[in-house]
Amino acid sequence: MTTEIRQKIEKLASLSKTLENGDFLLTWKNDEPTLRAVLLGAQILEDLVKANISTRVFDTGLGISIFRDKSTRTRYAFRSGCNLLGLMTEEMDESTSQIAHGETVRETATMIGFLSEVIGIRDDMFLGEGHAYMKEVSHSLEESYREKALNHRPAVVNLQCDLDHPTQAMADLAHLADYYGGLDKLRGKKIAMTWAYSPSYGKPLSVPQGIVGLMTRFGMDVTLAHPEGYDLVDEPLEAARRFANESGGSFKQVGSMKEAFEGADIVYPKSWAPVAVMNERTRLLRARETAKLGELEKQALANNAKFKSWECTEDLMKGTKDGKALYMHCLPADVTDVSCKEGEVAKSVFERYRLDTYREAGHKPFVIASMILHTRFGKPWDVLKGLVDANKSRRPR
Amino acid sequence: MTTEIRQKIEKLASLSKTLENGDFLLTWKNDEPTLRAVLLGAQILEDLVKANISTRVFDTGLGISIFRDKSTRTRYAFRSGCNLLGLMTEEMDESTSQIAHGETVRETATMIGFLSEVIGIRDDMFLGEGHAYMKEVSHSLEESYREKALNHRPAVVNLQCDLDHPTQAMADLAHLADYYGGLDKLRGKKIAMTWAYSPSYGKPLSVPQGIVGLMTRFGMDVTLAHPEGYDLVDEPLEAARRFANESGGSFKQVGSMKEAFEGADIVYPKSWAPVAVMNERTRLLRARETAKLGELEKQALANNAKFKSWECTEDLMKGTKDGKALYMHCLPADVTDVSCKEGEVAKSVFERYRLDTYREAGHKPFVIASMILHTRFGKPWDVLKGLVDANKSRRPR
Amino acid sequence: MTTEIRQKIEKLASLSKTLENGDFLLTWKNDEPTLRAVLLGAQILEDLVKANISTRVFDTGLGISIFRDKSTRTRYAFRSGCNLLGLMTEEMDESTSQIAHGETVRETATMIGFLSEVIGIRDDMFLGEGHAYMKEVSHSLEESYREKALNHRPAVVNLQCDLDHPTQAMADLAHLADYYGGLDKLRGKKIAMTWAYSPSYGKPLSVPQGIVGLMTRFGMDVTLAHPEGYDLVDEPLEAARRFANESGGSFKQVGSMKEAFEGADIVYPKSWAPVAVMNERTRLLRARETAKLGELEKQALANNAKFKSWECTEDLMKGTKDGKALYMHCLPADVTDVSCKEGEVAKSVFERYRLDTYREAGHKPFVIASMILHTRFGKPWDVLKGLVDANKSRRPR
Repeated sequence: MTTEIRQKIEKLASLSKTLENGDFLLTWKNDEPTLRAVLLGAQILEDLVKANISTRVFDTGLGISIFRDKSTRTRYAFRSGCNLLGLMTEEMDESTSQIAHGETVRETATMIGFLSEVIGIRDDMFLGEGHAYMKEVSHSLEESYREKALNHRPAVVNLQCDLDHPTQAMADLAHLADYYGGLDKLRGKKIAMTWAYSPSYGKPLSVPQGIVGLMTRFGMDVTLAHPEGYDLVDEPLEAARRFANESGGSFKQVGSMKEAFEGADIVYPKSWAPVAVMNERTRLLRARETAKLGELEKQALANNAKFKSWECTEDLMKGTKDGKALYMHCLPADVTDVSCKEGEVAKSVFERYRLDTYREAGHKPFVIASMILHTRFGKPWDVLKGLVDANKSRRPR
Repeated sequence: MTTEIRQKIEKLASLSKTLENGDFLLTWKNDEPTLRAVLLGAQILEDLVKANISTRVFDTGLGISIFRDKSTRTRYAFRSGCNLLGLMTEEMDESTSQIAHGETVRETATMIGFLSEVIGIRDDMFLGEGHAYMKEVSHSLEESYREKALNHRPAVVNLQCDLDHPTQAMADLAHLADYYGGLDKLRGKKIAMTWAYSPSYGKPLSVPQGIVGLMTRFGMDVTLAHPEGYDLVDEPLEAARRFANESGGSFKQVGSMKEAFEGADIVYPKSWAPVAVMNERTRLLRARETAKLGELEKQALANNAKFKSWECTEDLMKGTKDGKALYMHCLPADVTDVSCKEGEVAKSVFERYRLDTYREAGHKPFVIASMILHTRFGKPWDVLKGLVDANKSRRPR
Repeated sequence: MTTEIRQKIEKLASLSKTLENGDFLLTWKNDEPTLRAVLLGAQILEDLVKANISTRVFDTGLGISIFRDKSTRTRYAFRSGCNLLGLMTEEMDESTSQIAHGETVRETATMIGFLSEVIGIRDDMFLGEGHAYMKEVSHSLEESYREKALNHRPAVVNLQCDLDHPTQAMADLAHLADYYGGLDKLRGKKIAMTWAYSPSYGKPLSVPQGIVGLMTRFGMDVTLAHPEGYDLVDEPLEAARRFANESGGSFKQVGSMKEAFEGADIVYPKSWAPVAVMNERTRLLRARETAKLGELEKQALANNAKFKSWECTEDLMKGTKDGKALYMHCLPADVTDVSCKEGEVAKSVFERYRLDTYREAGHKPFVIASMILHTRFGKPWDVLKGLVDANKSRRPR
């Protein structure tokens, strides 16, 4: 096992990529070798845990999380990823503190940065806001580090914003690499990222955006499908087109789940909100027009209801490659007859792939830990090599 | 000191008991040597702390807690127990996540299990639910481990359910063993577990159930007393009768505190709710009939008020063995003229034993840590021996 | 670097001051060498972090915080300070537990003390209460330790009470020592601690009290200024007068910001509430007279509004020493045209010193860690020497 791990570390060193003193915010702002490096780093960390070799890199230090939306999976993945490396985590609870926009974002970023290696942020509720907020935190840390108010430069890791959900998309990519036996095996595989009906409204757009913006980079044939009006924002779509072109893959958009599923190796059916609804919701929330918010929800749900046929059924699955496409989901899924009456996916389909979705999620803590390693060290491969050399047990056998 | 600790570890090895890859849910589902092993493990951990020898077993790893009811003592004890072994703790706050019954219990169990060694759960509010919920979490972890969605099998530790409060009962047992100089000195000792009046209603039944289900195993004479209608559930009562029979102790029920106290070496007066009230409460809560809940509370309090004479007074204490029975309580107690006007125990009685109740509580972190050791390792004695051999200081002297 | 650190440790040893098995509650109850020792300890810890030498002293152990008021900076500083030394932190959330006054303060102190090295408390809302509460916790820990219900004696560290805010004042002092090149360079420096207008009411008095009670000990010329009626409580004022006398500094009170700023080397303009308002507020809160609370707030705000001219403007800054006094603030400041329309300080003044206020805040985690070292060890210098000798990396380079 150790020999294999050492080989992977050498490969990582040969990529020679680091994000030292930077952040991990959007996959499409990073070059492909960097993404490969982060993924390989995650894999090495998984191998180390399986080999019971300690991955503790920091003797002390903090990882801070800020969640501006509910979260189980990502919150836990962030804490696990930090803990893997030896960081104690703390959640900045905005209700017991005084974080706000304006002056104090800048200030608070530094206040929580003094002894922190990483600040993980989820801010996905409002289009046009989440990424901007993360940039503001990042710039504040940058300034305080430059001006020696901070001894070091904590990294910002995007735990889901309005544009991207990179820890999810990278964990999904790790799952595919694992499932097919390597990143290079993904070339020519067809993945269908499609909208699906859900009895709720207002789910973020960042998952489908993250998927099309990432999977197009590895030679995959990516098909996006959604009902009219459920468009994604431009930036990741443009990135997807550009990447497909560069990687020899493809990116196309179609108008039905059925068409998208045709011959697909992988399907990713998931609900999201129409851009227009999200924009209006942001406007109403800012203006505190709560009465109109209820009205908007009613209309949005009524509109959603027109597309109940966008459900990943056994029938639709039959149209995929050999009828056996791999089903993916970021969880929790709206499963028909399980978590709701009519949802994104039929019970029997979900149940068949349920444990696969758990395995998919299982990569996230390692992806996050690898992002921390790559943003906090100039030579992450040397840090990993140091762990193998030390060969300290993670726990007694 | 180290010699003595090594002897205890050898004794533990000779018991040769482990719960590897299992849970700790109900004391009465474990055989007696296993309980002796867990208790001895706790004692060894206490000795190590006193000898300033590090008890850190895990280099990294998480302990997750889920509290569905308020808690100070047990929450803190769980965190301390985890910390003792090197685990970072995290509380799963259901208000900021999406845990619920059905699909997501199964899912969430795995999501929080990826890098966790233990999941501690308190779910004691509804009769018929808490233990069932813990079993569901346990089965989900089991399945995910079997299907390789989890690399290891986190243990579930019961931090109080509707049936048992094993970390409390075991800490109480540790206190008695400490007080009388060993588990074997408990043979023939008379303990009175009695209901007591409290100005509140709806306290769980799990403490008295845990006490009668555990103390009967060590040859003690256990007497249970409560007003009519304040019965406990059958399972622990049947266990108590069976164990008393097997251990050469006894188990009987009487109708007054006075009779129960007669000649008792130990008294444990504590309020709990009538089964019928708890069942009706569960039904109303499920049906969301809040108006009727208020009515139920009123009736229950009125009924409680008939039994204000069930107070552990100096007068009643005089009837115990030499008038000097050891008073026990899981805390917080309703102390007359201190925390309420009329409560479970007279101020002077409580004050005399107050520091003893603190000592009683002090065993809980070690009991929990021992449960973690026994569920997570095949040879917990070897793990403990490794700590003594390493002889690392817990803190500088 | 290491040579310099060793020299500082020798100097610390020569002071030979420890607070072993005690608390850190009020600066003015400690002698001057002890304060110098705590400050030097903080400096050594900062040096160790900069030299990338591990400051981990505890292998396991807990630091508990209790916040009875909102906090970002101090909460984070406490957690960082604990983490620096290897302690896992936990916040005692009173809403999910049952802490209250009376019996349970005493009880809870012990319950959270079993494996804790330090309990940090913020209780600054009610005059006459915060310090008293901390003393009660301290006495309970003391009793339980004496009676062997606790194996050790956790320290209580004041994270802001009604009388003092010692972690802030000591961090401020560290900032000044850093800025001027040593504690001894502060002799003869003039500091103006002045009230300033804020659009809120009810800010604690502990910061100005902490400043006048501490800065007078190092030969500084301390001037306090506030509008009529905004007096501070007597204890710290008396201490300030006594210390000024002893140290060869001075302490005087004047009636305007302008007069206080005249020739000042340092200015500290900050809002606080009038004693009379705070007392009345405490009375009304205890009596649960919420209607009258609103009335009180209205009156207090109206009264505040009479003193809007108490703003630290460019014009007022011109009157300070060479027009270049160092501006200080505990943050967050009410900055005119940034966080409010009319506030404590003009935007351009604040912006010029903003990064200095960040540096000021950056000392707090180290001050707290030093307080823990001094309360938990008989020879903190030996503990620090042990760290330099071990020379373990804090993180890979």
